[in-house]
Amino acid sequence: MKFYQKWVGCFEDGKNEFFDVSVPGNIQNDYALYKNYGDVNYGYNCEKYKWMEEFSCIYKAELNYQLAEGQRLYFVSKGIDYEYEIFLNGNSLYSHEGMFSPVEIDITDFLEETNILEVKINKPPKAQVDEKEKDTRTEVREFLKPAVSYGWDLHPRIVPTGIWNETYLETRGKGFLRDCEVFYELSEDFKVAEVRVDVDCSEKCLIELFAPNGECVYSGYDSEFTLTEPQLWWCNGQGEPNLYTCVVTSSENKIVGKTGFRKIELVMNEGAWSEPKTFPKSRSIAPITIKLNGRCIFAKGSNWVSPEIFFGTINRDSYEPLIRLAKEAHMNIFRCWGGTIVNKDSFFELCDEYGIMVWQEFTLACNCYTSSKRYLNMLEEEASAIVKRVRRHPSNVLWCGGNELFNEWSGMTDQSPALRLLNSVCYINDPQKPFIMTSPLMGMGHGYYMFRNAQEDIDVFQIINSASCSAYPEFGVPSMTTPEILRRIIPADEINNMSPGTAWEVHHAFKAWEVDSWCAKNTVEEYFGESASLEEFCERTWLLQGEGLKAVFEEARRQKPFCSMAINWDYNEPWFTAAGSNIITYDAKPKKSYYCVQSALRPVLASAKTQTFRYYYGEYFEAELWLLNDSQENVSDVIGAYITIDGKEEHVLTWETGEVKANCNKRGHTVRVKLPVTESEIFTLKLKSLKGYDSTYTYVVTEKKDKRVKRVLN
Amino acid sequence: MKFYQKWVGCFEDGKNEFFDVSVPGNIQNDYALYKNYGDVNYGYNCEKYKWMEEFSCIYKAELNYQLAEGQRLYFVSKGIDYEYEIFLNGNSLYSHEGMFSPVEIDITDFLEETNILEVKINKPPKAQVDEKEKDTRTEVREFLKPAVSYGWDLHPRIVPTGIWNETYLETRGKGFLRDCEVFYELSEDFKVAEVRVDVDCSEKCLIELFAPNGECVYSGYDSEFTLTEPQLWWCNGQGEPNLYTCVVTSSENKIVGKTGFRKIELVMNEGAWSEPKTFPKSRSIAPITIKLNGRCIFAKGSNWVSPEIFFGTINRDSYEPLIRLAKEAHMNIFRCWGGTIVNKDSFFELCDEYGIMVWQEFTLACNCYTSSKRYLNMLEEEASAIVKRVRRHPSNVLWCGGNELFNEWSGMTDQSPALRLLNSVCYINDPQKPFIMTSPLMGMGHGYYMFRNAQEDIDVFQIINSASCSAYPEFGVPSMTTPEILRRIIPADEINNMSPGTAWEVHHAFKAWEVDSWCAKNTVEEYFGESASLEEFCERTWLLQGEGLKAVFEEARRQKPFCSMAINWDYNEPWFTAAGSNIITYDAKPKKSYYCVQSALRPVLASAKTQTFRYYYGEYFEAELWLLNDSQENVSDVIGAYITIDGKEEHVLTWETGEVKANCNKRGHTVRVKLPVTESEIFTLKLKSLKGYDSTYTYVVTEKKDKRVKRVLN
Repeated sequence: MKFYQKWVGCFEDGKNEFFDVSVPGNIQNDYALYKNYGDVNYGYNCEKYKWMEEFSCIYKAELNYQLAEGQRLYFVSKGIDYEYEIFLNGNSLYSHEGMFSPVEIDITDFLEETNILEVKINKPPKAQVDEKEKDTRTEVREFLKPAVSYGWDLHPRIVPTGIWNETYLETRGKGFLRDCEVFYELSEDFKVAEVRVDVDCSEKCLIELFAPNGECVYSGYDSEFTLTEPQLWWCNGQGEPNLYTCVVTSSENKIVGKTGFRKIELVMNEGAWSEPKTFPKSRSIAPITIKLNGRCIFAKGSNWVSPEIFFGTINRDSYEPLIRLAKEAHMNIFRCWGGTIVNKDSFFELCDEYGIMVWQEFTLACNCYTSSKRYLNMLEEEASAIVKRVRRHPSNVLWCGGNELFNEWSGMTDQSPALRLLNSVCYINDPQKPFIMTSPLMGMGHGYYMFRNAQEDIDVFQIINSASCSAYPEFGVPSMTTPEILRRIIPADEINNMSPGTAWEVHHAFKAWEVDSWCAKNTVEEYFGESASLEEFCERTWLLQGEGLKAVFEEARRQKPFCSMAINWDYNEPWFTAAGSNIITYDAKPKKSYYCVQSALRPVLASAKTQTFRYYYGEYFEAELWLLNDSQENVSDVIGAYITIDGKEEHVLTWETGEVKANCNKRGHTVRVKLPVTESEIFTLKLKSLKGYDSTYTYVVTEKKDKRVKRVLN
Repeated sequence: MKFYQKWVGCFEDGKNEFFDVSVPGNIQNDYALYKNYGDVNYGYNCEKYKWMEEFSCIYKAELNYQLAEGQRLYFVSKGIDYEYEIFLNGNSLYSHEGMFSPVEIDITDFLEETNILEVKINKPPKAQVDEKEKDTRTEVREFLKPAVSYGWDLHPRIVPTGIWNETYLETRGKGFLRDCEVFYELSEDFKVAEVRVDVDCSEKCLIELFAPNGECVYSGYDSEFTLTEPQLWWCNGQGEPNLYTCVVTSSENKIVGKTGFRKIELVMNEGAWSEPKTFPKSRSIAPITIKLNGRCIFAKGSNWVSPEIFFGTINRDSYEPLIRLAKEAHMNIFRCWGGTIVNKDSFFELCDEYGIMVWQEFTLACNCYTSSKRYLNMLEEEASAIVKRVRRHPSNVLWCGGNELFNEWSGMTDQSPALRLLNSVCYINDPQKPFIMTSPLMGMGHGYYMFRNAQEDIDVFQIINSASCSAYPEFGVPSMTTPEILRRIIPADEINNMSPGTAWEVHHAFKAWEVDSWCAKNTVEEYFGESASLEEFCERTWLLQGEGLKAVFEEARRQKPFCSMAINWDYNEPWFTAAGSNIITYDAKPKKSYYCVQSALRPVLASAKTQTFRYYYGEYFEAELWLLNDSQENVSDVIGAYITIDGKEEHVLTWETGEVKANCNKRGHTVRVKLPVTESEIFTLKLKSLKGYDSTYTYVVTEKKDKRVKRVLN
């Protein structure tokens, strides 16, 4: 039986003033509530937390439980962030570095009449860094803690600590069933699963397995058995995410868990073996095509970041609407980016249920992580705990060391001990799952991150059209959040002063990457001139983000099968930003661009490949027509192309596609139309399909300007 | 005390005829001696061994030893090839798959009055393969056995088995010292070594460490101690290969071993971090610069293949002259290619002594090795045994999974379980040593392998000049062996019929890679026309090989520091070939090209970069002058360029180099001379140096021909 405790906490700031804290939670958040800091999302409030970095803290509970004869009492925590020591009645029981390892301590022999449990947590760890790297992510390079907390282009500098994951006392008798895990080996034809259930209990347990429809397919005490014709787990769009229920029952308790049968491989992209051709001959590129149950999958999805600044406050309800929206957008994968936490169990449970594959990175990003013995020992322990927890979820299809570690701004290599260690830990604990040291690998591409590259005078259409990567696991186009949210987070006296050095910058509208990222002011003015209102400015950024993401997603799909993956940066956000590349706001509401992504990711759609976003009067507009098909069905269609200029829609071309094979694309005719002088600055291309695979694209058309005049943000 | 046995052996061919066998050795070789097969190098003799592949064999010895009171008797073998079972007096004691794991069995309790020890060895293993892959290297894809034995472009198809490494009985008492190994950690400034000696003995042993000059620097019973100012081990050309002697003494026996103090890293090549520049952005290339004791080394050397077909016959004397010649050629590295065995201990001892770094590959080459559980379990055991044996040698600087595994003809990837396993085994057992999964990696280049690519009408000068690899770990130019050797290996009735389908082909003169490799008949005729004699033909191939290898080695050095490695294919040969890329013949005699390589690898040399090997009358000949400096000294020189045409030497240019910094190259003037019509088909460029860094190059000059006329070998 579990007993949840009432906790208080304090900072060891000399005053040591105790206040109520949430467990799971983060003490920084609790303190802000206690002291009425106001909404962290508002104005400059996020800066109020900075002083807390300098103080360790104490969580304290007077224990409350009932212990029967023959039972033992355990303190159990799924995670305490970050470096801590546990005391019972003043006696030290355990100390640890790392937020991901679970803790289980038999405290029975230390119990007294009344019992005070204390968890002392050191102040957030910071590596010694150069002066100019103070208060940057570089400070986390010696720790396995989310780099995003140390400040990122989507996240304020707030470094939480605390008892951040489920924590309780538990009474356990002789027949206590601690854990169980289902392992299996599928036959080559996927018709037979040899199942083994590892049961952590001192007595024999009853094992029952129920099919997705509830039918019992095994019941017995043997921990190894054969399952014929297992209903496979498929990702979204490829079949049902079938889950079996495994119930293990001891004389004392029972564990109910889900399992899914599926085989996962990372194989070479089609055509990749034929390169390189010339001597001296290098290697072929790294494999990055996901093969699920023998079927090569085009992976389409989004980069997941934490949905909260305070990881301790995340629960199933934080995850559910976001993951549901991913399914509804026809996504089949999340890249769980290494800059943040490895999510809590409910995240993986929901991904299992919704059929979203999870590319899981360890908590390393954009740093040259140390090779010290302390770090490597900690990393081995923490990574092993992560792998053992997450591997049981069928949604977990790929391990990755971390983000952009093989690039100059990080400076790690294939020889970095931390990454060799992670490869080893994954191989030993989860040998049948692919592992990559980082992203990007050879052949893969990260970026671009703006709609337009002003230096090179090219837009995202041109960038993606001239690329030929095996996978695009990070590309983004920023946009503003909604005016409603802006009025909630930007102080009234700054709302009409969108500029650097204000709360707009605090909320990433400026200087997040380049000077006008993520508000993209220069880009909006380049295409549309000044905006009449905040509403109009926001609308324009949504148009750019939506059309830009469609351009990349659809072109990546057109590059199938050599290309096998398109994952935009990024999906969600940990707080209310003023601007960012996310397509869903902090309150789990889609931005307009979400619906563009949803359109681009439909299993089947009519798609147009165009060379750029902006055209000039008198230029020819060209659009290659395609039918994109990720489905398992052969399809055929009749597609009409219509151009609407100044409100007049004109039919310009019809393409009878003929048969387009399952999981294949087909290219058709190319529209070519001379653009007239227009009143409106935009025109649209509509592809109308007999079968409902319609698509619509919006472009800018304008008078030719002297390109040498460059606008610079003042 | 060790007792070596007299062994007999037989094939289990029904007759089971026993004959004397060598231990260590290979039964195929012993049988050939017994039956007077004649020299395996002669004619078609190598084909006589083929039937032996179909039979298992038995090694048998009546044991001979003296066992004192309280002692145990052990059967010890350093390796038995390949799948075997050991019996004493008919009782099975042990069975194993794999030639690299040592065997130690306490047989005391099984001893009788007289004792017959038998080792039954299965016939050479062969994977089930398609008909067209029968009798090819593909048959080894499920085993850790040298692929070269299954037939290669330098090796006949002969698959040996047998007790191939040192094997004996040993009496051991209570104080027996089984093994000891020195581990150390060097301080950042290399001034202090924290030493730990692992001693495998049930009693405390005396540990003594002696400096290279014989001085005792530690004596005591503590297994951990501090050594200050250790004399570091350096590779050839960078300093002394300082070796310390460690003596560990128990009450019963003593072990004397060598150790060297050095730190080894694999770091990014200079300039490599600044790529790639454009979005979508991939990773930077893989690191391949060897950093020894904090100093980046330009690795220059050769690919080592087995010096014998019958691995069991290899001993220290097989290795010594070859390794000495490498040192004399200014080499500092061997790439011990994965197509053959991991060498015996004496190889590494000699490399330690001569300062030759060893890039050691596991026994995988040009195959898609299986992922079966049997294979992976065997690989883990064998690889662990290899690493634990070899890691103690300071010369061992790099582990590598195997040869060309990430190329289309092999088909393995970063995800192959065998390679992830090898990373894990190396990381666990030898964490401070670099590991690469295969060669080439991204940025590195293998090939070209001929002097001239006729299809593209380019020669090796043009190929290397247009390449920009981080490392060239395999490039080759073939040549003939000597006429003397040819008369020894080619039957008299074929010596004047150099053509495919004869003993010339058996000895790799034809169809080894392309139709006229490795004799390069087309290339020789392209440049020189028909040869008047075998002697003249051989001489011409030697010229091409020598000038070609110089061109590649010197250009690779000119590409330093971005390029950090040049290793030619290959160094030696396992038997007498008629033609091959080796620069030393089977009898350990240098080919003429050896001296060209020796010239190109001098620490300091004057070097000329020219665009091609062949010029036409009236063309301009250009030569960039360089001073190449791999030494630790600043140098300066005055270099005169002289061209000799038709016997007349002319001084054309003088370059005063000024200071050329240690470990840096410098480019000087460029010679430009119009070539006249000549009598001779060759001319030479000599660089005469005040300091003795002279170099000489030979080129062909001829009348311009219609290039569209292609010669084809009939």
